[in-house]
Amino acid sequence: MKALVYHGPGKIGWEEKPRPPLQESSDAIVRITTAAICGTDLHILKGDVPAVTDGRILGHEAVGVVEEVGAGVLDFKKGDRVLVSCITSCAKCDYCRKAMYSHCRRGGWILGNTIDGVQAEYARIPHAETSLYALPAGADDDAFVMLSDILPTGFECGVLNGRVQPGDCVVIVGAGPIGLSALLTARLYSPALLILIDRDENRLTAAKSLGATHTINDTDGRAVEQVLALTGGMGADAVIEAVGLPATFELCQKLVAPGGRIANIGVHGKSATLHLETLWSRTITLTTRLVDTATTPMLLKAVLSGRIDPRKLISHRFALEDAMKAYDAFSNAAEEKALKVILKAR
Amino acid sequence: MKALVYHGPGKIGWEEKPRPPLQESSDAIVRITTAAICGTDLHILKGDVPAVTDGRILGHEAVGVVEEVGAGVLDFKKGDRVLVSCITSCAKCDYCRKAMYSHCRRGGWILGNTIDGVQAEYARIPHAETSLYALPAGADDDAFVMLSDILPTGFECGVLNGRVQPGDCVVIVGAGPIGLSALLTARLYSPALLILIDRDENRLTAAKSLGATHTINDTDGRAVEQVLALTGGMGADAVIEAVGLPATFELCQKLVAPGGRIANIGVHGKSATLHLETLWSRTITLTTRLVDTATTPMLLKAVLSGRIDPRKLISHRFALEDAMKAYDAFSNAAEEKALKVILKAR
Amino acid sequence: MKALVYHGPGKIGWEEKPRPPLQESSDAIVRITTAAICGTDLHILKGDVPAVTDGRILGHEAVGVVEEVGAGVLDFKKGDRVLVSCITSCAKCDYCRKAMYSHCRRGGWILGNTIDGVQAEYARIPHAETSLYALPAGADDDAFVMLSDILPTGFECGVLNGRVQPGDCVVIVGAGPIGLSALLTARLYSPALLILIDRDENRLTAAKSLGATHTINDTDGRAVEQVLALTGGMGADAVIEAVGLPATFELCQKLVAPGGRIANIGVHGKSATLHLETLWSRTITLTTRLVDTATTPMLLKAVLSGRIDPRKLISHRFALEDAMKAYDAFSNAAEEKALKVILKAR
Amino acid sequence: MKALVYHGPGKIGWEEKPRPPLQESSDAIVRITTAAICGTDLHILKGDVPAVTDGRILGHEAVGVVEEVGAGVLDFKKGDRVLVSCITSCAKCDYCRKAMYSHCRRGGWILGNTIDGVQAEYARIPHAETSLYALPAGADDDAFVMLSDILPTGFECGVLNGRVQPGDCVVIVGAGPIGLSALLTARLYSPALLILIDRDENRLTAAKSLGATHTINDTDGRAVEQVLALTGGMGADAVIEAVGLPATFELCQKLVAPGGRIANIGVHGKSATLHLETLWSRTITLTTRLVDTATTPMLLKAVLSGRIDPRKLISHRFALEDAMKAYDAFSNAAEEKALKVILKAR
Repeated sequence: MKALVYHGPGKIGWEEKPRPPLQESSDAIVRITTAAICGTDLHILKGDVPAVTDGRILGHEAVGVVEEVGAGVLDFKKGDRVLVSCITSCAKCDYCRKAMYSHCRRGGWILGNTIDGVQAEYARIPHAETSLYALPAGADDDAFVMLSDILPTGFECGVLNGRVQPGDCVVIVGAGPIGLSALLTARLYSPALLILIDRDENRLTAAKSLGATHTINDTDGRAVEQVLALTGGMGADAVIEAVGLPATFELCQKLVAPGGRIANIGVHGKSATLHLETLWSRTITLTTRLVDTATTPMLLKAVLSGRIDPRKLISHRFALEDAMKAYDAFSNAAEEKALKVILKAR
Repeated sequence: MKALVYHGPGKIGWEEKPRPPLQESSDAIVRITTAAICGTDLHILKGDVPAVTDGRILGHEAVGVVEEVGAGVLDFKKGDRVLVSCITSCAKCDYCRKAMYSHCRRGGWILGNTIDGVQAEYARIPHAETSLYALPAGADDDAFVMLSDILPTGFECGVLNGRVQPGDCVVIVGAGPIGLSALLTARLYSPALLILIDRDENRLTAAKSLGATHTINDTDGRAVEQVLALTGGMGADAVIEAVGLPATFELCQKLVAPGGRIANIGVHGKSATLHLETLWSRTITLTTRLVDTATTPMLLKAVLSGRIDPRKLISHRFALEDAMKAYDAFSNAAEEKALKVILKAR
Repeated sequence: MKALVYHGPGKIGWEEKPRPPLQESSDAIVRITTAAICGTDLHILKGDVPAVTDGRILGHEAVGVVEEVGAGVLDFKKGDRVLVSCITSCAKCDYCRKAMYSHCRRGGWILGNTIDGVQAEYARIPHAETSLYALPAGADDDAFVMLSDILPTGFECGVLNGRVQPGDCVVIVGAGPIGLSALLTARLYSPALLILIDRDENRLTAAKSLGATHTINDTDGRAVEQVLALTGGMGADAVIEAVGLPATFELCQKLVAPGGRIANIGVHGKSATLHLETLWSRTITLTTRLVDTATTPMLLKAVLSGRIDPRKLISHRFALEDAMKAYDAFSNAAEEKALKVILKAR
Repeated sequence: MKALVYHGPGKIGWEEKPRPPLQESSDAIVRITTAAICGTDLHILKGDVPAVTDGRILGHEAVGVVEEVGAGVLDFKKGDRVLVSCITSCAKCDYCRKAMYSHCRRGGWILGNTIDGVQAEYARIPHAETSLYALPAGADDDAFVMLSDILPTGFECGVLNGRVQPGDCVVIVGAGPIGLSALLTARLYSPALLILIDRDENRLTAAKSLGATHTINDTDGRAVEQVLALTGGMGADAVIEAVGLPATFELCQKLVAPGGRIANIGVHGKSATLHLETLWSRTITLTTRLVDTATTPMLLKAVLSGRIDPRKLISHRFALEDAMKAYDAFSNAAEEKALKVILKAR
């Protein structure tokens, strides 16, 4: 089969690889029909994720069709359409029993990381019964591939941790795909104000079209002033960090109202300054989380019932065999006005 | 001034009464601009509420303008536009400190019950600072008079107690004004299925136009069957009782899924049968609640930001001095296709 | 091997049976070192549980040693000391993913019910990895066999559902083994008042020795009066029903304070009257639940750290081969002053 | 009357001052029977709290007897024994309605800060009905003066924010009076491990006597290692910061388990480093809070019922007129082995 293979920093190729066989009785082999490229894949490509070694097939977002299952897999059979979760969950370990699947002792984020991933014609999915989700006949691949990672990430790390409630003022810092996923899923709770902050006008325009009530271009450094003006000087009930830099994290601290929540989604490479000299008395809650995809059943219902349409996050579609071109487009996101870039098998 | 006065079962009149003076330093006198008639007012008229005695001015739902305030009232002044809550809260007693304002030891539901109410040109509001809510300039009376009682009732007793979440299946039994208020506010949480059950086709049509995903006319007694069909045999995550009869309460018990919630809003005059012989093992939660209007600030934001438009609940508008005609219309709700009936001062 | 076998209403025997073999790769065979008899076993003996058929080995509470595991069982090996949960959980189905293990689609309460149980020298435990819990070396069988069923039942259905908090007034109706388990685990949350109601003085004496702050013998029907006297007329924050009869369930409704919770543990064979005519406005929460044993890890820590000592619930110890005598004693609980009766292998 | 008066950094005196008169109708005048000195008072003495100006009477922790009440005060009368909360709450503003009394727009921490305090023979308490709490006859001043500030601070900011649950591992960094208050109130939830970390052996000895399961002297910088050893390498479920320094806050970040909580109590004068480069994926919750004394009713019940005995926090008792000596003792806490220092009127 063909697959997108990593060969060290800066080097990937669309290459012939052996089709993966079943290894454990709990495995399934899935024929990939649609995959997506994640910002994390670009980090891998830069060499930022040392666990990914030469020869690894990348990718952890996909929809497909079950080709073969291990003897222990009772819930899926050949021909079933499935969503592949970016998080593999054994369902049995102490973390899985607490629904912290991201910390699963036998799984977590392993696809396209410590084992071969899904930007390929076929992929092996361990612990298939609790790492795949059945899709109904007629489900649109494009909508559901957004549920592999990006939608639950925005929802769990941003919206649920931010405890978004009807009538709230919600500020999302960062209007990339993750920030926009937080926006889409925040709307499920009907906040009164849903403010997106970024420095890229294209992304702010996308945010507006996806339902932001206000957008702020912070190039001039006046975001705090504007949020305070919109909230009668109070600040935001929930601030969602969707960038992953010290500067944006510090901005969040200035935006949060007394009693408010800062929900971090961003992947941070460096420490940040926490202004406890002002925050200690402001009664705030700050959260971090690695996506667990524990809410995938809820999000499936929300998408199936039309409450959200995640296809709006997709800016580019390529054929699976054009994966190299897709990486190029996604790598030049600003120029290409790229949000989510997906790969479609023929 | 003129007011709608109760004189015993079946007897009300639009009569001259003295304009109420301030009695306590925490009082405000409000000039009523819009009032509404509640189903409870009809119960009073039938003589079902013994606390209401001859000579009482009825009504507990209104919007108006502050005319005069007691010396202790700092947060409002003459000329302020205000929403009158149906629940009077002293803010200080043990119940108020727990946000159970309905059980306030010096207040609760007293307007149009144990003291004179708001279907009048003027009304005295005790504990004004915590029983009135400021309305912004330009706020539409018609929208906000729905926040005196009916919207928080549907929301607190039905939606919050029912713990409605995105993707849920929500069934509301009863498509009268209260059931429709639950419907409107349930939508703030984006359930996947929002099913209204009633036996009045007009009300079901209204429910559909207000956002019900499905409506069921239970005249044939097949509601359970239909809900199970819509939910793959599981039943509803949240069932909201908005009628107040043993039969509808029993229906709710058949509709709820294992792990689900039954949230009672209905005012019950009789006991009901609880089928513990089946429910004991089904892991369900059943709640009752008298509205506290503790969520009025949240609902104000939801209405001001356009997340819900409660004016859709209004079927009839009368001049305040035509209050008697308004009672007639509301008393014949089925024929008149009446939902909420409001009274507008000139 | 020998086992306690059911042969229809009123008929049980301690008999020779084949030692159970592994059937599925997820099974374990456990050599039973200590088992317990549950009130449910007596219901079975009366013929009240039709699912239990002739030839079934009874029992769902045990501690033992792993004898053999299926190929798919990685977390346990021969020689491991284990607690057997009364609830078998596949960990994978929709209910298990919501921690509603009692409703597991491939498990739930099956031991000694739809498959052979643990009042035997050996037992087969399906889905062993998520239905057994490792015990540390030196753990006392007698303490931990209480964690198979009774302690999590009192805790989950009574204490957690009752949302017991420090300073609360908690009333437990029924001072049998289940009520006493609720008492022991309620103390983990430091209620101010912990009142046990029963009509058996022996049980009330046991309750007192286990930490009840007050006991009430309701033979004279004055329990409500006494609870109101103890709470300044308010009633109880949490009322836990641990009997399973209409009369005791009705008593709970009179004991609960406005804003309070009624947590049902009792197994009810009949419907009960719910006094909605008074409760509709009292803002109460009523719950039912079948034990999930989802809190077993928490309870293991509480017992291991000495926060609770469940051995105090044990009144009688018999040799495993004297199981018939043990059933006799437990069947005459009042005369025998029996609480929990356990069976110890040599 | 006599009072402890601040005259700028380093200068205080026990001086004659006019007895405070009623100013507002919601005021009460309280004759102080017992007061306490808080660490914050020492900060004021150093000049760290600019709001405190020359001539201010210090102190915000007291128990006393009502001497006189304003016309609007209905819930208290002359002769009532009362607990004075360190937080003054108007009960009516938006923050008070959310139980964030510390942010009350007309109150908050004002006693001994922006208005005269309670280290005096008499004190004026604004918003008396919701800033005083009735004490029963026979209540011991020494126990209840701990409820003015220190006990709710440890409980709300540490234990509740840390979501301490039965079976948890709880680590408290700092064994001063605040840390010990967190310890006392954490025990209400029966954690399995309750570990205190400090560098003062006297305080660790006190911690042990108050119920710590383990104490760690971190002089050698090996606290992390020791906590990991005690928790099988997992870290703590809840870490409570009770010092207020960057170093101790950083220590907390190393102690917390995946999925755990860091609850800050410490008053921080400087920012701290937040290690998002590791924490971003560890699914942690970090909270700050200014004490609201919203849990005073709960804590009153816990103390009255004997669930906790806060008198154990008191190391020194002085006569009120010896307030200067009391400050000396408290200023030399390490040498004096001082925990809480209280002042008793004759």
